[in-house]
Amino acid sequence: MSDLLYPPSAHPVVADAMRLLELVREAPPLTHCITNAVVTGFTANVLLAVGAAPAMVDIVGESELFAGVATGVLINLGTPTPEQRAAGLEAAAGAVAAGTPWVLDPVAIGALPVRTEHAQRLVEQRPTAIRGNASEILALAGLSAGGRGVDATDSPDAAADAARLLATRHGSVVAVSGPIDLITDGERVFRVANGHELLTRVTGGGCALGAVMAAFLGAARGTRLSPLTAVTAATLFYTVAAERAAARSAGPGSFAVAFLDELASTTADDLGAAARVELVATPIVEAVS
Amino acid sequence: MSDLLYPPSAHPVVADAMRLLELVREAPPLTHCITNAVVTGFTANVLLAVGAAPAMVDIVGESELFAGVATGVLINLGTPTPEQRAAGLEAAAGAVAAGTPWVLDPVAIGALPVRTEHAQRLVEQRPTAIRGNASEILALAGLSAGGRGVDATDSPDAAADAARLLATRHGSVVAVSGPIDLITDGERVFRVANGHELLTRVTGGGCALGAVMAAFLGAARGTRLSPLTAVTAATLFYTVAAERAAARSAGPGSFAVAFLDELASTTADDLGAAARVELVATPIVEAVS
Amino acid sequence: MSDLLYPPSAHPVVADAMRLLELVREAPPLTHCITNAVVTGFTANVLLAVGAAPAMVDIVGESELFAGVATGVLINLGTPTPEQRAAGLEAAAGAVAAGTPWVLDPVAIGALPVRTEHAQRLVEQRPTAIRGNASEILALAGLSAGGRGVDATDSPDAAADAARLLATRHGSVVAVSGPIDLITDGERVFRVANGHELLTRVTGGGCALGAVMAAFLGAARGTRLSPLTAVTAATLFYTVAAERAAARSAGPGSFAVAFLDELASTTADDLGAAARVELVATPIVEAVS
Repeated sequence: MSDLLYPPSAHPVVADAMRLLELVREAPPLTHCITNAVVTGFTANVLLAVGAAPAMVDIVGESELFAGVATGVLINLGTPTPEQRAAGLEAAAGAVAAGTPWVLDPVAIGALPVRTEHAQRLVEQRPTAIRGNASEILALAGLSAGGRGVDATDSPDAAADAARLLATRHGSVVAVSGPIDLITDGERVFRVANGHELLTRVTGGGCALGAVMAAFLGAARGTRLSPLTAVTAATLFYTVAAERAAARSAGPGSFAVAFLDELASTTADDLGAAARVELVATPIVEAVS
Repeated sequence: MSDLLYPPSAHPVVADAMRLLELVREAPPLTHCITNAVVTGFTANVLLAVGAAPAMVDIVGESELFAGVATGVLINLGTPTPEQRAAGLEAAAGAVAAGTPWVLDPVAIGALPVRTEHAQRLVEQRPTAIRGNASEILALAGLSAGGRGVDATDSPDAAADAARLLATRHGSVVAVSGPIDLITDGERVFRVANGHELLTRVTGGGCALGAVMAAFLGAARGTRLSPLTAVTAATLFYTVAAERAAARSAGPGSFAVAFLDELASTTADDLGAAARVELVATPIVEAVS
Repeated sequence: MSDLLYPPSAHPVVADAMRLLELVREAPPLTHCITNAVVTGFTANVLLAVGAAPAMVDIVGESELFAGVATGVLINLGTPTPEQRAAGLEAAAGAVAAGTPWVLDPVAIGALPVRTEHAQRLVEQRPTAIRGNASEILALAGLSAGGRGVDATDSPDAAADAARLLATRHGSVVAVSGPIDLITDGERVFRVANGHELLTRVTGGGCALGAVMAAFLGAARGTRLSPLTAVTAATLFYTVAAERAAARSAGPGSFAVAFLDELASTTADDLGAAARVELVATPIVEAVS
């Protein structure tokens, strides 16, 4: 994390993030997750800590219905069994029909054929947001064959063009996770400099962020706040909590515990004081040169 | 938790609970769990901490056999894949045939059709105990359409009539989880005032209690202690450990860690000193008025 | 743990273990796990803490391909759904074809028929290593009907003959977990005295060791170090970290957290200073008499 690059920011998105955090805690958004077997418990605990109400409904015959009832939906492809693939397609259809915001997390696509084909079917349904590491975003855009599994082998900035392409093509907000997170709606690009390397040493560190995005998108419904703002707000809150947790951790085990505590205790004011974000109006490769 | 409502109790069920805790630790009951993907690891850790021996055998072709070998069985419907549904029916049949006590946890039934139908099939097999939040107990009794997912939208006392109805109809002990837990065999009603709100901020806080009930029911086999006593004892121990953990926690992450430590270290005497329970002989709506 | 039996050891395998730990951290081995639903999150966190790169790819149509790309593979039979069984056979075929080292963990075989038959099919593919408790190793060798689920009812030394038999029959290194771990390639036998009882109070304490073995076997590829050395090194590192964690734990909850921290922070020198291992040249029943 380049500490000097981004001083605590006064960009209006920070005030919006503070407001959204309060909204999440005032009226816990029912967040419907179809996620992978590795991180399902951690993801539910992250949502509970944030103040949202998780529901992991990944059963065929229930997912479509529930996506219409939920406030936000996450579809994560980490361990896409046939049952989960069918339930994911149901959930996407239910979310689209009901206007429920939904997040697609195309875990480890590119090299792995089953999930790659599944991700392509889902992205055609125009997810509200797409979250992945650079390799996954490049693969989803058709610009690379992906990394080795969940291992990110490209930097977020390297995926900036792919992110904008995906955003424009599918009407989605695209978030590329990495040391500096990049979030775009195809026109505007936010870069978030908060976070900590320990987040990559806990399984679900990325996957659970997708769930928090779904919660914040849900909380933003009926407000003037855009999906771009909601996804950026979720990223800011999540990565600020990670920084605070890392400051009192001895390793990945104690970090995961402190992270859940911080997700529950970090206030809107804490968030405002620590947020480091910039809006990049022009293509990122020029903006940073 | 209404601290003044229930002073530490001298009701005989407390001494029975202390004895059952010791029995669990002397001869770890083999506790067979068919439970949901979100909480399976936490549930196993809770059982290990308590002193029981967990075994998560949810495979068709093994569940019926294993339910006959186990000391107690839990069937939880949180993520009921087709394989788990078939394995659950097998396990119920095996438990009934062998006389193994078993617990049904009808997670999120009511609004979700697949699990609701499955729960109705299972409850016909007359589970030894049924555990749920008020919305789930109301839905299982056919008195409501359920809450929104796992979210409890009714209070335990509101489900008192439904609990007694279910208990009488199926010969089960019914436990309604909430700020004050209600446990009934259809005639007698116990109310347990121990516990802590942080238990609702950890995924599996309710589900793992169902597993502990199965362990205590197993330990009670061959003793003079009734299923009503065993289920009440499990609830008392679990909620007392939660109180002790909350006293040294900074949030939901550190609470979950301290809770496992307390489940392992809380002694029978600790339990006796902290238990707050009352027996309500008459319908609860009259007893508290 | 018999503290006096094994003083810190100067056997050359300790220096090899120190070197392998450094190799794992220098070039994180991509470790492909098909493991059970109870421990999948914990196993990924253990691998991340150690410094390896976990990937839980248990989908039919992806597993064979990925086993060829991975550095090491674990196939664990804890919750063998039909999908996982098919994916496991794919992964074994892919590993064999590519020469990727792989570990078989035959969880709870013997009494449970589906996994027992599945384990027999897999062991015919000649795994690089087999890890289990004594009951599982006896059952896999056809010398017993197994324990009651994952519960070890036999001591590692009681399984010494079964371990050598399996090792010789299938060309595998066989590791028997217990208070003193026993590891053999059919000729040489190592006994490791490190470890702590708390490791048996955390679900996945044994299962995640199989994953660390796969990581160390992966790191040993292309070196002069044998699979016997790699499996012994993994066991030494894992059990030394457990000892260090236990020294600052209040129970199973805080132990699991400290264990992940120690897996990340224990250095090669720490390992060398604490390792207690002996080589037993002759059959163990004679060596200890």
